[in-house]
Amino acid sequence: MQTFQYFTPTKVVFGKGTEEQVGELVKEQNATKVLIHYGGGSVRKSGLLDRVEASLQAEGIRYVTLGGAVPNPRLSKVYEGIKLGRKEGVDFILAVGGGSAIDSAKGISYGIPYEGDVWDFYLKKSLPQINIPLGVVLTMAATGSEMSDSSVVTKEEGWLKRSAKSDLGRPKFAILNPELTYTLPEYQTMSGCVDIMMHTMERYFSHETDTKLVDAMAEGLLRTVMQSARVLLEEPCNYEARSEVMWAGSLSHNGLTGCGRKGDWACHQLEHELGGMFDVAHGAGLSAVWGSWARYVYKENVARFVKFAVNVMGITENAEAPEETALAGIKALEDFFRSIRMPVSISQLGQDISEEQIRELAYKCSFQETRTIGGIKSLNRQDMENIYKMAR
Amino acid sequence: MQTFQYFTPTKVVFGKGTEEQVGELVKEQNATKVLIHYGGGSVRKSGLLDRVEASLQAEGIRYVTLGGAVPNPRLSKVYEGIKLGRKEGVDFILAVGGGSAIDSAKGISYGIPYEGDVWDFYLKKSLPQINIPLGVVLTMAATGSEMSDSSVVTKEEGWLKRSAKSDLGRPKFAILNPELTYTLPEYQTMSGCVDIMMHTMERYFSHETDTKLVDAMAEGLLRTVMQSARVLLEEPCNYEARSEVMWAGSLSHNGLTGCGRKGDWACHQLEHELGGMFDVAHGAGLSAVWGSWARYVYKENVARFVKFAVNVMGITENAEAPEETALAGIKALEDFFRSIRMPVSISQLGQDISEEQIRELAYKCSFQETRTIGGIKSLNRQDMENIYKMAR
Repeated sequence: MQTFQYFTPTKVVFGKGTEEQVGELVKEQNATKVLIHYGGGSVRKSGLLDRVEASLQAEGIRYVTLGGAVPNPRLSKVYEGIKLGRKEGVDFILAVGGGSAIDSAKGISYGIPYEGDVWDFYLKKSLPQINIPLGVVLTMAATGSEMSDSSVVTKEEGWLKRSAKSDLGRPKFAILNPELTYTLPEYQTMSGCVDIMMHTMERYFSHETDTKLVDAMAEGLLRTVMQSARVLLEEPCNYEARSEVMWAGSLSHNGLTGCGRKGDWACHQLEHELGGMFDVAHGAGLSAVWGSWARYVYKENVARFVKFAVNVMGITENAEAPEETALAGIKALEDFFRSIRMPVSISQLGQDISEEQIRELAYKCSFQETRTIGGIKSLNRQDMENIYKMAR
Repeated sequence: MQTFQYFTPTKVVFGKGTEEQVGELVKEQNATKVLIHYGGGSVRKSGLLDRVEASLQAEGIRYVTLGGAVPNPRLSKVYEGIKLGRKEGVDFILAVGGGSAIDSAKGISYGIPYEGDVWDFYLKKSLPQINIPLGVVLTMAATGSEMSDSSVVTKEEGWLKRSAKSDLGRPKFAILNPELTYTLPEYQTMSGCVDIMMHTMERYFSHETDTKLVDAMAEGLLRTVMQSARVLLEEPCNYEARSEVMWAGSLSHNGLTGCGRKGDWACHQLEHELGGMFDVAHGAGLSAVWGSWARYVYKENVARFVKFAVNVMGITENAEAPEETALAGIKALEDFFRSIRMPVSISQLGQDISEEQIRELAYKCSFQETRTIGGIKSLNRQDMENIYKMAR
């Protein structure tokens, strides 16, 4: 087990009707004026925004609202939030929505007190030293941003999707009511399930072997999400399945399943470029590349892929042919993705991708050939191109 | 899954040599004068205290020390710490040791700014509204107090062992270096393993069924601790096994394995009276009563005991005779306790206990017949007496 830090200060308030506590939770933070940041109109149409506003009003807390966070949230919206937040003198930011609203809110929270360009943090030119604290009312289980230190934003100019990480970005509280996810379209729900699984798998596929506790927890999490996703295909309003998925989403990305090891993260990096170029749902982009990535790298650590196959996918181990077991596990997860109607190739994402576009993706993903990605196997620009081709 | 709150703000710094960071971590808390509270002389003899002091000095942080925290930490020591802390004007408390030093430090942290008697918090007469923040350098994996909201202290007058709970008591940071536990005597190590398992089992034995994720994580944790305890019997300086146990100890009692359900906690209450009367090691007291408790209550939820038998103890399920499977699981855990040289009865604790003492234990445990304990089955004074008798 490697040396690690684990820091998850977010207070989670989980269960039915918990959004009614938002005013109280904001008050606990000694906030006086809040910027409520949300995404599309569904938050307003469903009446959730009204309930949130009423709860703030009941505590005498003033607020302004800013809608329009979109999937793969845009830098221009972050700039808009920074301007509004400064003008209104807000001292707290409340994201009401899924990962897009939260990631965008984190950008705003870093940007308001920062004299330079907030994009600096995403280019790793600078680290946030201070921010406006934020809280979350979650409406989609997927990115885990409600407890994570991470914010992913896309700069429209060049469609660059980049992440900024800071413990300051960990929300002060996260309200998790599984009922708020009932009305999500199936595609969004399943895409969220893939994202949750991938946050754990990116940490799981590692060369570190002495992580028994963390492995066992990760494997249990993956099995639970698969089981719950199958239930939600048939019964989207099953409270228990929604609950398991929602809590798994937070635990998948708050650091827990990565303690004591270096993760891989190549699939996320490969997907970020796809998301930047084609604006696909993040989870769908991940399932589209995962199988190709796995087949490209599994020989670097067959034992780990065997462990995954046996403990997560329920494959019977063939001790005489470990590679066979490993490949059976990869196939089983792809079959699972298919069964929940998620793509296992870029064409199934609805994208007809050219050779030139593949070269461009790999070039951008390698930061103009200045970085490699991956932990199980270090991948350079050529490797990236190979995987995109396999995933075509 | 029931509504829950999850709040674990403690920053964990885990790995070899991490105690060297203590000065830096205290500095981050803007502390200027620290009360270092520790237990026996081993912390001094091993040189750990010198390293901690040197690290504080390097950051220019002043400190005073108070040793003498004992297992089942005493209220008189808490009073002593409060007096010293006030006199010296400390603004931070650093516990260097195991659960005793930490629990005692929490009492001191509540007591310094409180005008009344700190014992009020343990009698639930009052709730801490403010405290002196605290941090931990852990030397024993057991109580999980390094991340928990709980402090257990014994009042010498009447030997009452009582707990106080408050989120204020959650340490600001916890330094976890598994190497610091190498020199623990086997009995303490194994007693710690039992305590860790019991913190998860007290939450696991519940009537709530829709907790698949939390169950899977709890089961993985229990299997890992058993596996690691067996390794440590043979190799007390096995870093990986020490690491698994240490991290399991923190995750067992920070709330994670209890999310979404009401726990049982009867064994802890039964043990607290034993600990108060006979001053036994907490984990050893727990293993001495667990089997008797389990056989007394299992019929209230056979399915849960079957799940435990199969998923934790590796018993093959006999679907036609679930009670048989449940009992096999109970026996298997008792066998495990024996295999790591832990007692499975009060007499094996080295205590010859009289009928009168049993009556006294039950009377005290029922708070003079004013409370029942337990979640799987609600236990009154008579039930407690029956279990103590079975455990004799």
